[in-house]
Order: sequence, then C-alpha cells, then structure tokens
Amino acid sequence: MSSDAMRPTGAESLIATLEASGVEVCFTNPGTSEMHAVAAIGRAQKMRSILALFEGVATAAADGYGRMAEKPASTLLHLGPGLANGLANLHNARRAATPIVNIVGDHAVSHRDLDAPLASDVAGFAAPVSKWIKSADRVEDVGAAAAESVAAAMGAPQGIATLILPANTAWEHLPEGVKLAAPPVRVAVPPAPDARMIRDVAAALKSAQKAVILIAGKALLEPGLQAAARIAAATGARIVTDTFVSRQTRGAGVPAIGRIPYFPEMIVDDLKGTDLLVLAGTKAPVAFFAYPGRPGALTPEGAKVLSVAAPSTDAAAALAALADELGAKGPAPLTQLKRMERPQPGALNATNAGAVIAHHLPEDAIVVDEGATSSGAAFGMSGTGPRHDWLYLTGGSIGMGLPLALGAAIACPGRKTVCLHGDGGAMYTIQALWTMAREKTDVVTVIFANRSYAILKIELMRTGVQNAGPQALSLFDLANPEISFAGLARSMGVEGIRAETVEEFEAAFSSAMKRKGPVLIEAVI
Amino acid sequence: MSSDAMRPTGAESLIATLEASGVEVCFTNPGTSEMHAVAAIGRAQKMRSILALFEGVATAAADGYGRMAEKPASTLLHLGPGLANGLANLHNARRAATPIVNIVGDHAVSHRDLDAPLASDVAGFAAPVSKWIKSADRVEDVGAAAAESVAAAMGAPQGIATLILPANTAWEHLPEGVKLAAPPVRVAVPPAPDARMIRDVAAALKSAQKAVILIAGKALLEPGLQAAARIAAATGARIVTDTFVSRQTRGAGVPAIGRIPYFPEMIVDDLKGTDLLVLAGTKAPVAFFAYPGRPGALTPEGAKVLSVAAPSTDAAAALAALADELGAKGPAPLTQLKRMERPQPGALNATNAGAVIAHHLPEDAIVVDEGATSSGAAFGMSGTGPRHDWLYLTGGSIGMGLPLALGAAIACPGRKTVCLHGDGGAMYTIQALWTMAREKTDVVTVIFANRSYAILKIELMRTGVQNAGPQALSLFDLANPEISFAGLARSMGVEGIRAETVEEFEAAFSSAMKRKGPVLIEAVI
Repeated sequence: MSSDAMRPTGAESLIATLEASGVEVCFTNPGTSEMHAVAAIGRAQKMRSILALFEGVATAAADGYGRMAEKPASTLLHLGPGLANGLANLHNARRAATPIVNIVGDHAVSHRDLDAPLASDVAGFAAPVSKWIKSADRVEDVGAAAAESVAAAMGAPQGIATLILPANTAWEHLPEGVKLAAPPVRVAVPPAPDARMIRDVAAALKSAQKAVILIAGKALLEPGLQAAARIAAATGARIVTDTFVSRQTRGAGVPAIGRIPYFPEMIVDDLKGTDLLVLAGTKAPVAFFAYPGRPGALTPEGAKVLSVAAPSTDAAAALAALADELGAKGPAPLTQLKRMERPQPGALNATNAGAVIAHHLPEDAIVVDEGATSSGAAFGMSGTGPRHDWLYLTGGSIGMGLPLALGAAIACPGRKTVCLHGDGGAMYTIQALWTMAREKTDVVTVIFANRSYAILKIELMRTGVQNAGPQALSLFDLANPEISFAGLARSMGVEGIRAETVEEFEAAFSSAMKRKGPVLIEAVI
Repeated sequence: MSSDAMRPTGAESLIATLEASGVEVCFTNPGTSEMHAVAAIGRAQKMRSILALFEGVATAAADGYGRMAEKPASTLLHLGPGLANGLANLHNARRAATPIVNIVGDHAVSHRDLDAPLASDVAGFAAPVSKWIKSADRVEDVGAAAAESVAAAMGAPQGIATLILPANTAWEHLPEGVKLAAPPVRVAVPPAPDARMIRDVAAALKSAQKAVILIAGKALLEPGLQAAARIAAATGARIVTDTFVSRQTRGAGVPAIGRIPYFPEMIVDDLKGTDLLVLAGTKAPVAFFAYPGRPGALTPEGAKVLSVAAPSTDAAAALAALADELGAKGPAPLTQLKRMERPQPGALNATNAGAVIAHHLPEDAIVVDEGATSSGAAFGMSGTGPRHDWLYLTGGSIGMGLPLALGAAIACPGRKTVCLHGDGGAMYTIQALWTMAREKTDVVTVIFANRSYAILKIELMRTGVQNAGPQALSLFDLANPEISFAGLARSMGVEGIRAETVEEFEAAFSSAMKRKGPVLIEAVI
C-alpha cells in the first residue's frame, strides 16, 4: 500500500468534519455511488447511521430530528433519483426552517458527461428546497465544504444545505497536508432586534384597541412564549400562532396561545376587527389554498401591520425586548394542569379517541400531528395536560408524520413520541415503520382510519364543484379494499393493534404509554 | 346560473382535449388544487381514472402503460410536492423514452406570489425529467396546451410533457367562442433514415471482421428485431441490446439477440476484438457506475463506430433500410419453442425459481423485471419460451417495478403481467399493491426475498472498500426485522403467499398463472 493510500479518503474527511461540527446522526438509503461514504460512516467514532427503506423517510426523519435536537442531522442519498424521493419531505422541512445537511452522492466527476442511466441534474432537483448547494468536486475540498454545509444549515434563516459528493472525491485519498477534519465554520447569528422598531411596536400596542400578535418559529418554545405572554398580560393583545408550525411547547406550566384556523373564511372571522397585527417570526396570514371568488391574502381589513422579527430572525429575542420595552416584567400567566377526563365507552370516533390520547399523554411527550381532519380533538383536549411539544405538518405535503416521529424519537430517546396520522397520508411513507422496529424507537402511532381522504371530500364542496359523480368521489375513497394498518405494522416488525371501540382504544393506548418501543394502533373511526 | 357558468370549465376543456388526442387513462393522486380536474374526469366520457396512494406509483404506472400502449397515459399530481414524489419514476420513464402527459395542479395564478405552505417551484422540479413544460395560465389556453402536451410527449424523441394547471384556469369557465376540446396537434415524425449513412454502414459491415450492432428503443419490437436478424444472417454481425431497455419482445417466433452485460469489465470482455460497432437507437456503451481506476466509456478499442439511427429516430426503419441495402431479403431465423424444464424439488433459490417462472410463463405474458441480482435466471431461461415482452428498470432508480406492472396490465388487460422484484426495491412503492387490488389487475408479483440490498454487497467490494465493518454492512441488511411481503400484500387486499421450497413456489406460481387477478408470492431465497 502506498503512502497515499494510507491517508484518509474524502469520505472519511466528510464524516470526520461533520462530527467535528456536531452532526451525530445520518439518515440514509445509500447506493453504489455512496459506498465510500457508507464505509466511512461504518468506521466513524460518533456518527450514528440509520437505514431508511425509502428516501422520503430519511429526509422527514432528519426534519423531526432537527426540530427536536435544534441542530442538523445529515442524510445520505443516492444520486438525483434518491434525492428526488426525498424532496417532498424536504419541502416540508424547508417550511419548518429545519437545519438539515442533505448529502447526495453523485457519479464520479469523470463519469458525469457520459450520461449513464442514473445521471440527472442533481443540483436542479435540489434547488427548490435548498438554501445552499455545493458539489465537492475535488477531494481536498470535501472537508471545507462539509463544514460550510453545517454552518449554512444552522445559520439564520435555518434550512437545508445540499452537499453533492461525487463518488471519486469520496474514494480518493486526501493530499498530504490536508487535515482529516475541517474546522467548524462560524454560524451566522440572526441580527439583534431593531430597537427603534421595538419602540414603535410597543407604542402601537399601547394605543391599539384590538391587537393580535402572530408568532411562529423558535418563538413557540418556552422563552418566546413567556415573553409573548408577558406582552399579552401587559397590553391585552391576543397571541396566536400560524395554523401549521414547526414545533410548539404546550401544556401545564407553559403559557397558552391561540392558533389561526385552517379555512380562510374562518381566519377572516377570527381576525375581524383587528386594528394592529404584530408579526414575530412569520408573515401575515394567507389562505392555504385559493378558492373561487375568495381572497388569498388575509390581513384583516384596516389593520396596521408591523413586524418585530422577520421569519429569519430571532423572534423570541424580539418578543423579550418588546416585553421589556413595555415594562411587562411580571411572570407570565401559565397553563394550570387539568387532565382531560376519560370518555364514555362506545364506538370510537375522532373526538373520544382524542380524549383518550389527551387523558393518557405523559409528561414531556412529543406529539407529531399529521392527523388531518381527525387530530383536532386530541390537540384541543391536550392543551391543559402535562407539558409536551406538538409538531405539525408544515408544508402541506402529506406523508411526513411517521418518519418525522421516527426522527424526533431518535433525537429524544428519553421522551415518548406519539404520532397522530390520517390513513391516506400514512400510506406515503409507511416504510418508516420498519426503521422504527429496527431502531426500537419509542413511537406510538395512532392511525385514524376513516378509509378516505376526508379533507378532500370537504374541499370538493368548498371549491364549488357541482355534481361530482361517483367516479370523482371514488378518488377520495380508501375503502376498496380496506387497508389493514395493524397488518402492515406487523408485517414490518411493529406491534399492530386494531381498535374499534373506546375501550379497545384506551386499553391499547394506555398500555403503549407505559411501555417502551414502537406500537401502531389502527383507530377505526 | 349565468350563461357564463353554463359553459365548460378549463378542467373540462383539458380532459375533453386529452380524450380527443387519444389519451384514455389518468393515474392520479389529487389534492385540493386538482378538485375541478377530478370533477371533470368524473364526468368524462372516456377517460379512466386510477387512484394511486403515492405519486411514484402514478408516474411509474404511466410509464408501464406508455411502454405497452405505445401512447401516453396522463397523470394528475398535487402541486410541487406531489410532482416531487413522482420524479424518481419519471426519471426512469425519461430513460425509457416513454410518452407521458404529466399534469401537475398548481395554486391559482393570483395565489402563487403569496408563498402559501404548498407553494414551490413546480417547473424547477419538473425540468430535469421533462422534454416540454408549460403552465396553462389562462383558461382559454388550457385546451391548446393540452393538445400540445400530447404531441410533445408523442413526438420524436418521445418523453415527458409536463403541463402545469393552475387551480383557477381549471375552475374558470371558457370564454364564449372557445371550443371545449382543442384539436389534436400533429405529432413530429422522426426523420427518415439517411440513405448515405445506410450505404456507408452496409459497406462497413461487408468488410468488418467482427461487427456488433447495438440496438435499443422501438427496434426491440418485432419489426426491428426481424430487420436486425436479417442483417445478422447476411453479414455475420452480432446483434445485442443495452443492459436495461424499455421493452423487448422475446421468445418463440421472434429473433433472439444478445444483451450487453452489467459490469463494465464484462462489457469490455464481451466486446473485445470488435472492429465495427453499429448503433441503432442508442449510444455507445458506458459503465453504469464509475469505479476507481477503471474507464467509464466502453467503446471497444480500435472499433469504428457508426450510427444508423440516433436515439430519437426510428431505429427499426433504419435497420429495415440497412437490411434492404444489404440485400438481406430472406426471412430471419426465429427462436424455436423450447420450454424450460421444471426444476428438482428442494430449497428455493433464484435459479430454480427462475426455472419455475420460465416453465409456466404463458404465451403473450408481460414480464416486468426489477429483480436486481435475482431475476437473471428467469430472464435467461425464458428466452426460448412462448413469446412475451420483457420490461426493464431503465434509469436505475429502484422502486419502479410494482407500479410499472400495474400500468402495463392496465394497458393490456388480456395479457398476464408477471412482476419480478427484489425485496429492497419493492419497499419503495409497495403501495402499488393496493391499486392492483382496487383495479383487480392481472399482475402476479414475485418478490425475491433475500433480505438484503444484495447488489450493494457486491458493489462494496467492487468499489475497493476495505474492512467495511459491521455498521456499514448493516446498511445493506433487510433481515432486522424480516419483512413479511405476503403480509403486506394481504394488508392491502392482494392475495399473499410465502414460498420457501420449489414445490411451494411452483404450486403458487402455476396456480396464479391459471387465474386472473393480483397475487404476490414472497419467494424466500
């Protein structure tokens, strides 16, 4: 073996650099072009590799991990098509502003122009979801690019850094003098709150009759909520958050806030009469979808709109500065513990299932919510339960929940993760169950099995379609044939339980809360 | 109701135009922005809509349909993320040069700039796989754009035409004077073979010592194979095809040709000494992946390379012209029927499973091959069986086979479709089984369950990785936990059978060949 071959490979430089920058987990579905990266991970000191059977599982797991760990996981995907399979959940992660180091293997640089079957425009696929894209085309640049990718993912605004790793720069050996691990790159810090804007907003709040403060992003963790609650107590302003946010801390001991409803006419009603709309870490509300003859921009008529923190800045710090400016020093009013009561026995529906979930939800749970039309009850009923974090479907692309829960559970092994999922969306990334079994993650999944894309039946009416007819309606129907989610779980090594009554559901859910490890409950509603 | 509202919508114009242009099937997973298109399909006279639980199923099904029907199916996908989920199999379809009308719903034009959660760069996602992209931003243009999309998909070179349909141009009513269905647009015809090139190649073939004719695309259907076989009989040239092609007709009554092997050093060996390489409908061979220290371009050293038909042209016509120029008028030698014999009883493996498949494969079967390391035996042993079509994984993106078989079966309901699949790849789009059950498609799926990404274990050695270690190797291992494919099938309404011996496998496979409807056999090898 030559002295050259004794030196580390580019792939080893990649993994060592990621470790030096604090990246500890890699969610992957690798292929031939990633072999040297796989080997480097296999020899790594700290990096934990987690196999997904589909790339959309890997990317959403990285999202769930990032939301809870507040630092990036890496992915390792197989060329353009592997990336493509992960894009929809990267779209959701982009909307959640989750830091992710998204590593995509590519053909060797010399192989790119040959147009081999797997060749494609990798950077083109990545562009719509990435805030940063770089291809490490020389082995000596791999470490620096990796360090830069972590800083890019973590820097404000946080997001997805896509690092393309050609096979040859993974397998080649570092030249003499190039260190194994590149040093971490300084992370861009969001600008401090604008003092003048804080004063202006404070003045506006004092004179407003009906002020609403719309907060999102990191402001939904405890410090931001505390500051917001102090402002509310001092000014009477109402604090609300967007319909779908990355992560919100809720429950006993945490200030409670409102939530913008989903349908645009409900948003209009909810905000009617608002004379001041203050934004912190988000934008003015818009309709999720357009509808014939209805407005899409939903800023209340006549309201003054001021922003204390753009989406990319530190909204919690801005709210704290605003509270201080208002002299709102006292402790914020906190939610008092009041557990939901157990429901009456009987046939299961989304409401009594929600009561069971709220009643048994343990302290410090993580709830992943892709429940569509079915999880609203659980959400509402758990607001005064023990403290927990609630994670939402941020980008509207269904099929995020199961792998998001997987990633959240990997980030927080000491906490119980509960995944509330619609049946339609669950079929997108059902393969996540296998990785839950393999990693023995502590995730309890509730599939609300209403055997339909129920939201689409509602939307069909709302969009003004007349006389849709049976062929159209059949496209929202999941009953022919009925899917056994309990059977799917068992086929992938996860305990699967079917529940048709409150009693069956409560027995299954309460038992799963007391144990460790993955369980799926098919809640037939 | 105003007279305006009595006129058809843009969505109805879309569907009526597609029907007028010969599009009969729509594979879809729609959402709110596609509601009016769903309603229009529901009222359509001819368009058949087929629901997929995941967009990668819809796009690969459209690929399978297009390969067999020789005309496009349409898709109907939900904004950028819905398209993103379908991209990997659109990559495979692009490599197969399959005509597809890929319809993607988008936000209303007025809603696009609001950056709602589902907004994304739809055209950006589509670009790497599409030969044609247009957004129909005015209702009066929807019909013309739809007609153009069909012509774009069908015109040489065939491929994917992505038509973006904003929600408002779907729901708005056509202005007075605009016809419901736009007339079909003339399809571009590939140029006629170049007479001078045909003469030159004929002369070169006469003087060559060791000529190889590499054919692909439509040349692999019967007329092209007949012409190629006549050339071979007249000149002694060897006819081969690429490793992975869209569709090849094989078996009794059809000329037999060779196939380029997979690994590059085997290609080099196979082509060694070739002094003339004639290309018809394809390019000179390249390595599927790059390997350290090995060449990627595999044109045999010293060989003269001539092309009678570029990939985008009519290779069958060029071969017929070449055969005529050579005076090769006689009937081509045809494969004589010789069914594979039944294997000995015993434990199941890929070889004896292949023999069972080859022995029982009925006349006119369609075989979809994503068998990776396991389907080579079935391929080799079926070459002298009854006539059939063999469809390959064209773009290297695994997870195409199950939905490709679904689409092929929809195109050819009178023929038996057999899907040969690796277990790793099958987990990518396992949701296809549900649509098979729902549509009662006549697809018999064989999952070669070797509990690993077996090809990657081979590639790990080939890429020169030393001492990979257990953590790296575990990333190719699907045994922890073991997946029950029979259970997955049953959970989605498809008959699922597990076979561990030749006897069990033969009983299951031969029985499935004699019945109609979907069956999955988990072949434990």
